[in-house]
Amino acid sequence: MKKHNFSAGPCLLPQSVMQKASEAVLNFNDSGLSILEISHRSEEFVRIMTDAQSLALEHLNLQNQGYKVLFLHGGASLQFLMTAYNLLENKAAFLNTGAWSSKAIKEAKYFGEVVEVASSGDRSFSYVPKNYEIPNDVDYFHCTSNNTIYGTQLNEFPNTEVPIVCDMSSDIFSREIDYSQFQLIYAGAQKNIGPAGVALVAIKEDILGKVSRKIPSMLDYQVHISKNSIYNTAPVFPIYVSMLTLQWLKESGGVSAIEKINRKKANLLYAEIDRNALFEAYVKNTEDRSVMNATFNLIDTELKENFDTYLKEAGVHAINGHRSIGGYRASMYNALPIESVRVLISVMQELERKA
Amino acid sequence: MKKHNFSAGPCLLPQSVMQKASEAVLNFNDSGLSILEISHRSEEFVRIMTDAQSLALEHLNLQNQGYKVLFLHGGASLQFLMTAYNLLENKAAFLNTGAWSSKAIKEAKYFGEVVEVASSGDRSFSYVPKNYEIPNDVDYFHCTSNNTIYGTQLNEFPNTEVPIVCDMSSDIFSREIDYSQFQLIYAGAQKNIGPAGVALVAIKEDILGKVSRKIPSMLDYQVHISKNSIYNTAPVFPIYVSMLTLQWLKESGGVSAIEKINRKKANLLYAEIDRNALFEAYVKNTEDRSVMNATFNLIDTELKENFDTYLKEAGVHAINGHRSIGGYRASMYNALPIESVRVLISVMQELERKA
Repeated sequence: MKKHNFSAGPCLLPQSVMQKASEAVLNFNDSGLSILEISHRSEEFVRIMTDAQSLALEHLNLQNQGYKVLFLHGGASLQFLMTAYNLLENKAAFLNTGAWSSKAIKEAKYFGEVVEVASSGDRSFSYVPKNYEIPNDVDYFHCTSNNTIYGTQLNEFPNTEVPIVCDMSSDIFSREIDYSQFQLIYAGAQKNIGPAGVALVAIKEDILGKVSRKIPSMLDYQVHISKNSIYNTAPVFPIYVSMLTLQWLKESGGVSAIEKINRKKANLLYAEIDRNALFEAYVKNTEDRSVMNATFNLIDTELKENFDTYLKEAGVHAINGHRSIGGYRASMYNALPIESVRVLISVMQELERKA
Repeated sequence: MKKHNFSAGPCLLPQSVMQKASEAVLNFNDSGLSILEISHRSEEFVRIMTDAQSLALEHLNLQNQGYKVLFLHGGASLQFLMTAYNLLENKAAFLNTGAWSSKAIKEAKYFGEVVEVASSGDRSFSYVPKNYEIPNDVDYFHCTSNNTIYGTQLNEFPNTEVPIVCDMSSDIFSREIDYSQFQLIYAGAQKNIGPAGVALVAIKEDILGKVSRKIPSMLDYQVHISKNSIYNTAPVFPIYVSMLTLQWLKESGGVSAIEKINRKKANLLYAEIDRNALFEAYVKNTEDRSVMNATFNLIDTELKENFDTYLKEAGVHAINGHRSIGGYRASMYNALPIESVRVLISVMQELERKA
């Protein structure tokens, strides 16, 4: 039976990408070699890297504006500290919209002072704070564009003189926004980019080189830029699959086309959550709801056993909420077919009929 | 045509591992899901991680001795700085046997004083220094057990009171030695462990917690140990394939059995290099020659074009020496079939006949 995988990440990738990746493990581009056994210094891999970089720049609409794209080891969690290591001389401002922002704040504190300009922690991160002030004397402002755990998403980003660093792990490439308002964007691959094991970083190069501390090589963006993102042995397979996924996105019409589908998927599901009397959305402010992760609860938790059974029977996978807030969470990243959302909705309606 | 891949890494993996990995990209263990889309918090992945950890401990013969095994992002290059971040309070001693030792030294200097106890840099790292003294007042001693670029390998490790940290990226799991003489072993996966994108670390836990500096979470071994190596989203696929490779090693008779084959492969090739008048070994001291990487030169470089043509015709791949020393390098890691070595030897003999 076909599974409908709503996993928050690592999540499903397009079927055509899976197919190519599987073939490449046995025979990469008819070379007689596996993608797993080619050198990271080979022509073949250098081309994979440069293709992935230029596809990423194209999807972000950041070509020829002084940005470099890196594909680095370590996931977004390593970026929590690398951003601070490279950019934080004295003080940085953070918007706290949940667990990932909090982790970024924790790591930044090893390197300098942190000003929390606003937090939605007072209501369990179920909304996005607005109308906060960013001090002019900070080295940068950091925010998390989409909060997977709570299902909130930032629609607007502040107008500020200071550089904006944005963790876009869970909504990069999902919507058309002006990506040039950010001086540094980072994202763990395992949602809209590729499999786990690599992080994408897009940096406006002129923000680097301004801190006085010495930076170990592997943590220094300038070192990685100088080696075109192949400073050490790169995570070849995760980068290859990321390149395939970025190619698929282009063939699918790019970010503008996928955004329309993403909004359609989210609208369908939120409409059902709001209509169906058995459910309630975790995020009440509709303008703060994430297009990527819809979080919701069963009002009568006694129905949970039945609902879970129907979900399983329909092949709906990984729809439990994050362990910290419980309930349900449907992650609808770029590769999730709209058909999967329709199946989920039909199960919600089945529960309503039978309840 | 079958390729004989002598790549220094990423290198070939066992054919059965490639087959299983390829299948898992489409359908992991008949779950209807790809290995690329399962959660790093799923039961399935937690089992992969614990299986990989216990197989590694078993192959190193380090069970029940206070060691923990981690599979971390970042490759050995991140370990260059993590070892120092976690262990270097004042001073560390290093044996410099080449480019990788030098890089480890460079990164350690960000954190404390480095004493280079000996170096083979005076003769282009073509031998292994012996009879050096390790000061008693250092926090640890660091060495590189096998030097891929030059083709040297350490056969003996010093008797010392201070903890030994060893970079075993290119010969871990290739030979039976007393691994308990090391308090910390690290290794990039892409030779004898699995594909690029993960590093193995085996740590004797009681050496941790002794430095006064604060360590950011992703760089702190104690954080990774406390989360059983799944602190953040792990590189799922590289770890899965590493687990398969460690399983294959067990099914192949373990380290003792593979060591016999490795020695046989190396003996065959070095015998031909020494016998064949057209070639000379880069490493003259036979006791310092690496069982993993045989480096050699054509004495008459005018024969290079012919040799390269014959190699290509025979399907011999990736046998060029490292760009820093030139010549040839045959890397014969665990998964390289002895048949490939025989093919290489036959090409060397073909050149001799036709020269």
